Amino acid sequence: MAGLGEFDFIRDRLRPLSEDDPAALDLADDAALLAPEPGEEIVLACDTLIAGVHFLDTDSPEVVASRALRSNLSDLAAMGAVPRAYLAAIAWPVTLDPDWRADFTRSLHREQSRFGLTLIGGDTTATPGPLTLSFTLIGRVPAGSALRRSGARIGDDVWVSGMIGDAGLGLRVASGSGGEGISACRRAYERPEPRLALGQALRDLASAAIDVSDGLLADAGHLASASGCALRIKVDAVPRSASAQAWLARGGEVEALLTSGDDYELLFTAPPDRRTALDGVSARLDLVLTRIGVVTDGSGVAAERADGSQLVPTRTGFTHF
Amino acid sequence: MAGLGEFDFIRDRLRPLSEDDPAALDLADDAALLAPEPGEEIVLACDTLIAGVHFLDTDSPEVVASRALRSNLSDLAAMGAVPRAYLAAIAWPVTLDPDWRADFTRSLHREQSRFGLTLIGGDTTATPGPLTLSFTLIGRVPAGSALRRSGARIGDDVWVSGMIGDAGLGLRVASGSGGEGISACRRAYERPEPRLALGQALRDLASAAIDVSDGLLADAGHLASASGCALRIKVDAVPRSASAQAWLARGGEVEALLTSGDDYELLFTAPPDRRTALDGVSARLDLVLTRIGVVTDGSGVAAERADGSQLVPTRTGFTHF
Repeated sequence: MAGLGEFDFIRDRLRPLSEDDPAALDLADDAALLAPEPGEEIVLACDTLIAGVHFLDTDSPEVVASRALRSNLSDLAAMGAVPRAYLAAIAWPVTLDPDWRADFTRSLHREQSRFGLTLIGGDTTATPGPLTLSFTLIGRVPAGSALRRSGARIGDDVWVSGMIGDAGLGLRVASGSGGEGISACRRAYERPEPRLALGQALRDLASAAIDVSDGLLADAGHLASASGCALRIKVDAVPRSASAQAWLARGGEVEALLTSGDDYELLFTAPPDRRTALDGVSARLDLVLTRIGVVTDGSGVAAERADGSQLVPTRTGFTHF
Repeated sequence: MAGLGEFDFIRDRLRPLSEDDPAALDLADDAALLAPEPGEEIVLACDTLIAGVHFLDTDSPEVVASRALRSNLSDLAAMGAVPRAYLAAIAWPVTLDPDWRADFTRSLHREQSRFGLTLIGGDTTATPGPLTLSFTLIGRVPAGSALRRSGARIGDDVWVSGMIGDAGLGLRVASGSGGEGISACRRAYERPEPRLALGQALRDLASAAIDVSDGLLADAGHLASASGCALRIKVDAVPRSASAQAWLARGGEVEALLTSGDDYELLFTAPPDRRTALDGVSARLDLVLTRIGVVTDGSGVAAERADGSQLVPTRTGFTHF
């Protein structure tokens, strides 16, 4: 194969991403070595992204690097964790242009700096298959304070951050399957914003949290299941951007907004007496937080339209199988 | 796709592998949550195995599960770490037989039990490419005690555990490219033995260590480079099994033994005053430890034959590029 060999690539391209973090051992040892602080727990999230499955073959190296880190960071956000470092297992297609690889690592470097991460280990290899990225993100939380999916209680409010459905519309734009009037949504797909500051603020306020990666209704279902209760969600209360509203007005289906994945917003529950505090968090972070429903007895998710009818989705969210 | 969906697969097949480890959060949350003990450091090793690249397409699910865990465990062994848990990022080919998948997870369960591991997280997805396994192994060491590649000092002995070259011969057997008289080596390829107990014993005795995964000479080169010195290795002193000796007698090249990968033995350095202690470790673990050379001034690896000539390999070891 043309270009750098594995060891040269690690030395020249990846080692700078370790930023002299002592945990990385210069990426020159068998493993990374992390020294936890007293009183903290370690949060470990691992997600795989595959070209043609989780991102478009035509996505730029910048977009792939951004999505790989940010989708993983969103899992840390959902636990209320502070990012610390990551390991990158990268399988490059044997036919990959070396320039693409160089652009990708440069983009990764910019992205990790933005989120205070360092690369402390991993593995690079060649594959006859598509580009495959398995990142393991490492975060930390004060012991006992991590947010979970399982803490929702009957009577809690259901909240969501940001706008729902824009990333799904953005994917339509990026893939060329209908982008009229929704081009502004492309950024939501290409550069989702992991809600790290919100997750950390929610440690003392929320009873349960999950990030919206499979689609709002699917992830609401995961939270309901883990908590052993039901979520009743008002369809009209789910926040949507001006682009999404205009798209609906032109005949778009609201179901698409509630079931497309990749929003990477936080869906969370909190007792009603936290409303004022949560409004304060919203103001401090300059991030819209919207009450979209309540936790009730039972199981599953009920999505109710304004006329009282149920929205029963034909698909509840993105699944890989 | 036929068979279980992702969530069913996780619930039915993978959750039992968490063994109710609290760190796994039932594999039902966004991330795993590890509570380190005071005074310990966390060791993190991440390796990717791809069908047709790191194992044979014809390897059984038992062999693939064994190699995936054990090759990663070998990295923990080289640091002197005690295994704690792992995350598994698995990309299944869309065409994979569901029975293969079920056999694989059963084998993984058996293997992890053997090594005291629990599955605490990861990701499963479908891929149009080959089966791709990225495991992140988590171990622990007392703070400050991890073995490194970088501690070798001039005058140290160079040691290696077990037998070198059998895994390379075993791969020939498994792939059907010449197995006469070496069929006993197949096990070394299919079920390598990570030297965990040895690594832990070496924390107080060795000055540097690495596992032999790329080939003895290549890994000796990595250790020499990290330590800023040279390794002089006596070719005839490198331990080889009866099968390997018979293979050499039939015209096999010693170079093949020193450059084939996957031995997963430990190559380490130690001051000469540790010889008696190391002989004791060898007896206690019932594991052959052999002195094969010395650490000298300079850089790189010199492999010397009995007649004083240098063995200059045409390939120094397995590289993925």
